[in-house]
Parts: sequence; C-alpha cells; structure tokens
Amino acid sequence: MITLTDFSPEAVILGAGDYPCHPIARRWLQESTHVVCCDGAADRYLAEGHLPWRIVGDGDSLSEKNRQACASLLRHYADQDTNDQTKAVKYLQEKGFRRIAIVGATGHREDHTLGNISLLIDYLKQGIEARMYTDHGVFIPCEGETVVGCPAGTQISIFNFGATGLRAEGLRYPLSDFTNWWQGTLNEAVADRFTVRGQGVYLLFINYPDPPAKPTQSTF
Amino acid sequence: MITLTDFSPEAVILGAGDYPCHPIARRWLQESTHVVCCDGAADRYLAEGHLPWRIVGDGDSLSEKNRQACASLLRHYADQDTNDQTKAVKYLQEKGFRRIAIVGATGHREDHTLGNISLLIDYLKQGIEARMYTDHGVFIPCEGETVVGCPAGTQISIFNFGATGLRAEGLRYPLSDFTNWWQGTLNEAVADRFTVRGQGVYLLFINYPDPPAKPTQSTF
Repeated sequence: MITLTDFSPEAVILGAGDYPCHPIARRWLQESTHVVCCDGAADRYLAEGHLPWRIVGDGDSLSEKNRQACASLLRHYADQDTNDQTKAVKYLQEKGFRRIAIVGATGHREDHTLGNISLLIDYLKQGIEARMYTDHGVFIPCEGETVVGCPAGTQISIFNFGATGLRAEGLRYPLSDFTNWWQGTLNEAVADRFTVRGQGVYLLFINYPDPPAKPTQSTF
Repeated sequence: MITLTDFSPEAVILGAGDYPCHPIARRWLQESTHVVCCDGAADRYLAEGHLPWRIVGDGDSLSEKNRQACASLLRHYADQDTNDQTKAVKYLQEKGFRRIAIVGATGHREDHTLGNISLLIDYLKQGIEARMYTDHGVFIPCEGETVVGCPAGTQISIFNFGATGLRAEGLRYPLSDFTNWWQGTLNEAVADRFTVRGQGVYLLFINYPDPPAKPTQSTF
C-alpha cells in the first residue's frame, strides 16, 4: 500500500523549477545523502547551505563561481534529446539507483512542468520507481492495481497514459478510460484507503492534506 | 497567421491560480470591459483596484465582504461536473461570446493547472476560440494547419491531443505523432514564422520572448 510518506528514496533530484517550500518536499533534501542538482538548481541549493552530491547537466546555467567551486561534483551530459531531469535520472540509473524522489520540478514555464511530470511515465517503463513531490502534492506513476492509504477527504487526480479498464474503489467519482487530462481531476478519497485498477499506466496525484489549523493564540 | 499579440478577445476570464505578472497577460485584464472572475479570483482583482464584469462560480471561495458588495455581479453555477474556469466559459458562451483570453489559470495545485490547460481542447471542439496567457507564454488550441509568426529563436512546445500526421516547417526539431507530453517540448522557431500541420487537435505553447535587456543606468 502506498502512502504519502512511506517512500524511502535512494537518491533525490532537485530540479530548477520552484524551490520546494512544503515540508514533505523539503524533507527529502534535508535527509538524503545523495542529492543530484539539475544544473542551475545547485546555485539555490548551495545558497540554502547544502552541498550537492552531484550536479548533472550542461553546466550552462550554473553560476561561474559555483561551477568552479563544485567542479569535482559536476557531471556533464551534452545529450540534446533529453532535459536536465532525465539526465539526472540516467546518471542515477547508471550508478544503480532505482528509487528516486524528484523535487523542484514544477513552476516557471508550464511546458517544462508538463514535460517533467510526464517523464515519470517513461521512467516507470524503464524500471525506475520515481515520485515527484511538489509544494501541493505528489505525482506517482502507476501500472495495474494501486492501493493508497490516505485520510478520507484527500483530493486525488488521475491522468491516463493509455490505460484501459480504469476503475476505482474508495473514490467519490467513478473512473473511465479518460481521453483528456481534466477528466480525472478533482476526485476525492471517501475512506482511509482507495484502490485504482487498470491495464496499462496512469499517473496519480495525491494532494497533501491541509496543514493542521494553527492553535488560536492565547490572550491570557 | 497567429502572433502572440494579434488576439482581440471579446471577454477575459481570470482564474484563481497565480495572479498575472507578465505584461502580456496583465494587458487583457487592463483593457477588457468584460472580465469574468472565477469565484475567489475576484478578491484579488478587486484588491488590485478593478471591478469584475461578472463573478462566476459557487461563491464559496469569495470573501464575505466582496460577496455582499458584488452580489449583483455574481452568477451562481452549482454544476459539480465542471470547474470554475469551465463555468465561466459556459456563461460567456451563453451570452454569445466566442473569443476568450484566460489568465491566472496556472500555478498552485499542478493537477488544477493540468486540468485547466487541457480544457482548452474541449472549448475548441465547442467552437470557442480561447487562449490561455500565463506568466511564461500562451497556450493555443489548434486543429489542422496553423501558421505562427514569431521571432526566430522563440521557444515552442506542442502537446498532441490525438492528432495524426503531425509535421512542421520552420521548427528546429521534427514533429511526430507524440504519445507522451514531453516529446513535443523544447522545440524552437528557426525563422520568423513556422507552420504546423496535422489531422486533429493539438495544443501549441509559445514562450514569450525574453524581456528586452534593461538599458545600463547612466553614471553621468
């Protein structure tokens, strides 16, 4: 059974999108000893007081100062056919890593965001277990049957990447073989677990629960 | 021929995502006399010193103060099967509007962003000419042949929604009948116009040109 926090990534990729704010996304950056920064993302990571394990990319968006200071951590990939996120995944794959958390991959240009999210499906097909943690939720690429544990009321979206026979138990609205992205959005868990079934691959988005309400400040 | 700025929308929809910062997106809010706010988006629009033409939605995310002050502008739509953006489009469609600019529809939850973007394809199929202007570029739903005028070097992405025979002239990388979102991203115009052809519908993203370099401040 999948839950929001059961993941134990062997490595973390920090993209050059919005730097993570949400504690669930930031946690991976703080806990992992194998953080790979996508090129210029290393500038922000270093500014936050961390040292990347590796920096992967063309090196063209990294500051001159950090490129020199971190020269030994930099792994160049000149492949024109992939983006920096995939270069980082390939690097980790070559090193034998299979379970990867990706953060900082959304925000800024929406076409980059769409590209980064959809690549999770390709990684799944290559045997990589990658999840993308944003400031709002987690994208998990899935195949076949998936059981998720989460509080009732959790907001769920499902994006179909060619799966057929999509069905769910424990969600408010029925699934079908969606042909447009919006059709599987705005669903909701009605109990503390739900199950999705289908032949083929699909992408699950689990919205983080609302933060616990701040206690009212005492006036005494 | 389509260009970034040739659009003359009859109405503008302001979503409850990130409030527009880029001048191209903000321009529609400043120039249009028919700005429809999606529910809570009206709070920010009013705070910016504007008065919406209409506010469409459930009214549940609008502040109590503004709900009372703008009661005459509010159009309730209780339809559970659509989101606020589509409610606004339906309202405008019923009033005879056909050419719509959508702003403030991305940012915050990524599943909402994906849903909002993909709905442009459904609007196209319903005879609505809608474009979504974000802070980074414009999404234009297209069918068949599309000719675009833009400076050489403009960053272009194409998302396939079932089109076949996708081909282009004037782009750096060849198109194919993409089956995953990322495959049509990171393309580039090589001249001052390009043409895309295909049977069926696809979504074009045109990245705004970089802002002109700020002149160096004179020290005299």
